[in-house]
Amino acid sequence: MKTPRFTPLVAGLPATVPFVGPEAHIRANGRPFQARIGANESGFGPSPEAIDAMCSAAPDAWMYGDSECHDLREALAAHHGVRPENIVIGEGIDGLLGLLVRMIVAPGDPVVTSDGAYPTFNYHVAGFGGVLHKVPYRDDHEDPSALLARSEEVGAKLLYVCNPDNPMGSWHSGRIIERMLKSLPDGTLMVLDEAYIDAAPPGTAPQIDADDPRVIRIRTFSKLYGLAGMRVGYAIGAPAVIGMFDRIRNHFGMGRVSQAAALAALQDQDWLRRVQSNVATARQRLGQIAADCGMYALPSATSFVALDTGHDGAFAHRLVNALMARDVFVRMPFVAPQNRCIRVSTAPDPILDVFAAALPDALAELDHTRHVP
Amino acid sequence: MKTPRFTPLVAGLPATVPFVGPEAHIRANGRPFQARIGANESGFGPSPEAIDAMCSAAPDAWMYGDSECHDLREALAAHHGVRPENIVIGEGIDGLLGLLVRMIVAPGDPVVTSDGAYPTFNYHVAGFGGVLHKVPYRDDHEDPSALLARSEEVGAKLLYVCNPDNPMGSWHSGRIIERMLKSLPDGTLMVLDEAYIDAAPPGTAPQIDADDPRVIRIRTFSKLYGLAGMRVGYAIGAPAVIGMFDRIRNHFGMGRVSQAAALAALQDQDWLRRVQSNVATARQRLGQIAADCGMYALPSATSFVALDTGHDGAFAHRLVNALMARDVFVRMPFVAPQNRCIRVSTAPDPILDVFAAALPDALAELDHTRHVP
Repeated sequence: MKTPRFTPLVAGLPATVPFVGPEAHIRANGRPFQARIGANESGFGPSPEAIDAMCSAAPDAWMYGDSECHDLREALAAHHGVRPENIVIGEGIDGLLGLLVRMIVAPGDPVVTSDGAYPTFNYHVAGFGGVLHKVPYRDDHEDPSALLARSEEVGAKLLYVCNPDNPMGSWHSGRIIERMLKSLPDGTLMVLDEAYIDAAPPGTAPQIDADDPRVIRIRTFSKLYGLAGMRVGYAIGAPAVIGMFDRIRNHFGMGRVSQAAALAALQDQDWLRRVQSNVATARQRLGQIAADCGMYALPSATSFVALDTGHDGAFAHRLVNALMARDVFVRMPFVAPQNRCIRVSTAPDPILDVFAAALPDALAELDHTRHVP
Repeated sequence: MKTPRFTPLVAGLPATVPFVGPEAHIRANGRPFQARIGANESGFGPSPEAIDAMCSAAPDAWMYGDSECHDLREALAAHHGVRPENIVIGEGIDGLLGLLVRMIVAPGDPVVTSDGAYPTFNYHVAGFGGVLHKVPYRDDHEDPSALLARSEEVGAKLLYVCNPDNPMGSWHSGRIIERMLKSLPDGTLMVLDEAYIDAAPPGTAPQIDADDPRVIRIRTFSKLYGLAGMRVGYAIGAPAVIGMFDRIRNHFGMGRVSQAAALAALQDQDWLRRVQSNVATARQRLGQIAADCGMYALPSATSFVALDTGHDGAFAHRLVNALMARDVFVRMPFVAPQNRCIRVSTAPDPILDVFAAALPDALAELDHTRHVP
């Protein structure tokens, strides 16, 4: 008998990973990026209050973090006008999605998402043996009625909706999400990923009863709060759903310094507003940079912009590589026709200057090397 | 149909948690502890270099941590004389145990551990539907031959061994562990939890071929390195086992500041040696404090000491409560006859002063209130 004996499920999983990280690219390149605008990190940085909180907490790092994340949950509950029992804190959205999938999805269970949506969600569904049913985007937006129809058809246990959307930056109004919820098939839990909601226009967040057991909203400190490196996400939902996390989560998984950082970031809403303004300005500038190169910036309610190359996925892929060769880290959507775009994070002006200089140069190289029909 | 539809496995899990955290006790008490010596955190603190590294990394917290933990893995590989492919970094030992159990244990699969050993391991086994077979301690030690016999008998997929042991502080020499490995049943993976190995005498760590696929060693920065609040553990094992973590782990789960802290802590071996010396001194002092009260300190190769009350579990439980009422946070073993002890973490002298003052007082209260036969 061979040792160890992996479960058939895990032994059958692919060895591929959802994303190659920026540091892995840097090691492959042998030099740092000049513009790190590929992972939708916030180059505007975390609140100075959050930085102070981390430094203040650092000497206390010998103590485990509060296993109940009490202070942060209380503050989030007050912030959102819900009760602490409506909130669970976890190791980033990725960590929470993994736990959520584990709670709901057994081998063979059907799950619905959009084709080209967040791959780490798909990674977790596959990791627990779920069967993914993918619905195409419609005009670069997730397609609410098609998502609902497919959920009904396959009896989805989970329906993943990302609003505003990653990787396209598109969005639906909160009313559309509310209408989706009204039409949600019996037995389907809607996973509403709102990672980018802080960058969206008013009215993008739906009005949802926090005690509605048919939906769970997922938020993060990784994006506009600028704390991707601290791994703090949270979910808002009915106590019966939220409480279930306590049966499987790592109770001491939320570190002390991370909790302190997130709490301080939440309390500095002035900084958040400043970042929101910076993000809006940077989106506009990315639109201009794109237009100057004959590309088109899709409207975005997120902290990144999808830039339509006007060509196909192969072209966009070469453009990503040409930018990477110029020390500009960007990514692109995975699936046609969205993969005609490249995806660029907003960032401070000096970083966008680097992008503005590299983009025409990279495009010129591609013009030079490709066959124009 | 009720929404959401939890998996039968998760819906059937108990709502109990492995540990009540110190902060939860503090909130219940309404005031802080004077001596926080119940969770085997290192009151000697992390290396000043690690604190500096955290503060330096804090402004960069807007960036995800390296998904491959490259620098830390390289440093750990060099430190242990193995290859980076032998090492996986994870969100503390708890996080790694969860992933490991998920890799190996399907519903109904047999797992062997000691009765009264680490409850979070048991929590994960239950969480994935495994069947736990528990072997009694023998004279306050884990019982190698009984553990092996039971593993053989039930066809264990995992055998959990903690050396040095938590919660008793006892240990076996590395040679005994090596002999266990020689006799390990075919198909059983030994999980060797070495959380406290840095506090143990030379020769406690077995000589194991890092490429042996029948054993995985688990280590942490939470104990003597003083970084419990940063959630960094690692496992050493054969590449075929270590590589399997990549199929299910959260690739961006290791935060940037945590990686920086652990790397700096590893590089400051002078600090580790100083903590080792402080731990040894504090163990001796705890022995004296216990003896002064008519209690007996069990020999310890860890950063805590089990103090034998000389009475039963009910008495020890009342003693823990009496100490908690005096703002001294300690814990106790879960299972008889080990639960005749209380478990006290080593700490700097001012903290042990608090304990030394509180213990006779608490014992006097108990003497006063109990019926002496």
